[in-house]
Amino acid sequence: MDELKFIEGGVCAPLGFKAAGIHCGVRKNKSKKDLALILSEVPCAAAAVYTQNKVYGAPITVTRAHLQNGVAQAVVCNSGNANTCNADGVEKAEAMAELTAKALGIRAEDVIVASTGVIGQVLDLEPIASGIPAAAALLSGDGSAAAAEAIMTTDTVKKEIAASFSLGGKTVTLGAIAKGSGMIHPNMATMLSFFTTDAAISPQMLQKALSAVVQDSFNMISIDGDSSTNDTVAVLANGKAGNPPVEAPGADFDRFCEALAVFAKQLSRKIAKDGEGATKLLECEVKGARTVEAARTAAKAVISSSLVKCAMFGADANWGRVLCALGYSGADTDADKVEVAFVSKAGRVEVCRQSAGLPFSEETAKQVLSADEIHIAVDLHEGEAAATAWGCDLTYDYVKINGDYRT
Amino acid sequence: MDELKFIEGGVCAPLGFKAAGIHCGVRKNKSKKDLALILSEVPCAAAAVYTQNKVYGAPITVTRAHLQNGVAQAVVCNSGNANTCNADGVEKAEAMAELTAKALGIRAEDVIVASTGVIGQVLDLEPIASGIPAAAALLSGDGSAAAAEAIMTTDTVKKEIAASFSLGGKTVTLGAIAKGSGMIHPNMATMLSFFTTDAAISPQMLQKALSAVVQDSFNMISIDGDSSTNDTVAVLANGKAGNPPVEAPGADFDRFCEALAVFAKQLSRKIAKDGEGATKLLECEVKGARTVEAARTAAKAVISSSLVKCAMFGADANWGRVLCALGYSGADTDADKVEVAFVSKAGRVEVCRQSAGLPFSEETAKQVLSADEIHIAVDLHEGEAAATAWGCDLTYDYVKINGDYRT
Repeated sequence: MDELKFIEGGVCAPLGFKAAGIHCGVRKNKSKKDLALILSEVPCAAAAVYTQNKVYGAPITVTRAHLQNGVAQAVVCNSGNANTCNADGVEKAEAMAELTAKALGIRAEDVIVASTGVIGQVLDLEPIASGIPAAAALLSGDGSAAAAEAIMTTDTVKKEIAASFSLGGKTVTLGAIAKGSGMIHPNMATMLSFFTTDAAISPQMLQKALSAVVQDSFNMISIDGDSSTNDTVAVLANGKAGNPPVEAPGADFDRFCEALAVFAKQLSRKIAKDGEGATKLLECEVKGARTVEAARTAAKAVISSSLVKCAMFGADANWGRVLCALGYSGADTDADKVEVAFVSKAGRVEVCRQSAGLPFSEETAKQVLSADEIHIAVDLHEGEAAATAWGCDLTYDYVKINGDYRT
Repeated sequence: MDELKFIEGGVCAPLGFKAAGIHCGVRKNKSKKDLALILSEVPCAAAAVYTQNKVYGAPITVTRAHLQNGVAQAVVCNSGNANTCNADGVEKAEAMAELTAKALGIRAEDVIVASTGVIGQVLDLEPIASGIPAAAALLSGDGSAAAAEAIMTTDTVKKEIAASFSLGGKTVTLGAIAKGSGMIHPNMATMLSFFTTDAAISPQMLQKALSAVVQDSFNMISIDGDSSTNDTVAVLANGKAGNPPVEAPGADFDRFCEALAVFAKQLSRKIAKDGEGATKLLECEVKGARTVEAARTAAKAVISSSLVKCAMFGADANWGRVLCALGYSGADTDADKVEVAFVSKAGRVEVCRQSAGLPFSEETAKQVLSADEIHIAVDLHEGEAAATAWGCDLTYDYVKINGDYRT
């Protein structure tokens, strides 16, 4: 999609959206923001996808109910506590919606609620109750960065993106923020990501677009193989751009999906690169597969393998681990004609052909694998399908961060 | 099984078996043994199970062919090179069988061949060709420990076991050696483990016993979620004990299976505890499940979770990660009545009931989780089925070992 024009402003870049992010006190550390708000001037078409984990957060129960009519106007999200596995979780998530509605003068059913952080600790509503009006007072067109910061947990960089493109003769704008870092192995959804757009699109088509796009973006990330209980991706579309409403499949819908896909893949790369403890982004592209499903399964197995991840951390061209992961992935492949190359900005090294080793320079391989973004190119030579997955290396810091996250 | 009498001698404890282990030169480090031989005086009923990885080692191709008739007499196994993903792998695995047959005066088709180590490096046959006769000359009834050492890769302790029990009025003996450490997440088989017995049992019943027993033992271990390309468990039964041959289901077969199961579970624990970089054995018992399959899937998800593994390394009672793993495991459970306790020789701490947190002493929890064997007790309260899985913590040393294993 060549005509995407990237701009500043994140979720506030589309017409009619404001955002804010503050420290309210869910987290002890006062220098870390922990409460985000996003508001549209008018009610929006809304769509979302959620974790498939059978243990899921109370905010998901509430948001799912609120989005049944395909309409929403605001997002409230805290970090520091996932409000999951708590007996009073749903009650408190509802209270967050009501407090937000009251502060913003909108309906509680039009609020999307999300939480991220530790599982199984009772959520203290007090800081949130005083934080919501405080954040509401700060809502502005410059608030996207603060909101992006407020949803971070162990993330080290905030993730936001915005771009304009033309749709039905009008300029429409799409914005998004996201967070990832740990417990990241999304299934049908991802960690938290909120999209805003001023495009006019029906809730049904918006849901269709989102559900299609996550398959090859967020669902293709793995930081650590653990699917979170709170994964949520939500999109708000307020129609302010004035384009002819997208209400059926067709060229405009495809164009919107394409833009959404570019965003989702860029955010996926950002989330993978900022995985807990990560020093390197891993990208595995599997082509020559019999089916897209086989390519996805194979690519995701490679970037999920602890052994591949450790080898990449050590800049060790141990391609046998790539073959091993392809073999146990369950993908429909015979894995007997596999070609593997490692590629980075430092060069390219071919290491395997016909599933057997090629002679290569260890020195070159070390150079290639010392870059901070590694592309693992796999060709199964069995068909025409392809897929890409994103992950990160497994490092001492991942162990450190997760050996004592809670206490 | 109360009447199992544990004895010394490993695979040489049963009547009529000898073993040896030497350094032949596949490994550079001369202080590490790298070639093991096991020989029975007479041909044996033989059975084996193998990795389900679609990328599998050349030795497995050869061994599978040799065991088609259910008969074998010797095992040859090298460490340091997996002889996998090599164009000439099968040829070299066959050569290992022929060299062994020649040195021992037996048929090549009666040799079980196994290899473990780096994938995708061409196997140098020279050290093995001179090593096999040298090892053959050292075969003795005291050779089990040397053989157990020779199959180790990053294992830190050798794993052997032997015991006697009565079968059909005779005393029969079972012996075994095993190795594990990394790339351990067996599916229908495990890393290398060789069992010997002087029991008389038909190849069919031996295979039936082995296939049944691995389900709740080796297949319930995970060190790092990566299923190896070379997993093999083989049993040789030479009949020297003189018991009435076990040739059909019945009390004797059940008794033999029971002994085999005790061995397989003990070796599984040993392998899990000696996982790469591990400081702790993790054992997760899931009970109250609707089906055994659900219990197995849930237990294995818990001990495979990187986040649970890191929490256990840090002695952090982060039980929310246990719930999270149960939820994404795919097991048939609603996960809404879950009870969780952490147990060790230092005590017991209940942390979750009805899928919500219980108040507990962080100090007690830290003490419990600082032991070197942690039992994670899960009750789903949905049925009567149970299963146990074994794993280990995820540590800095796992990353260190696997960041530079090959070079």
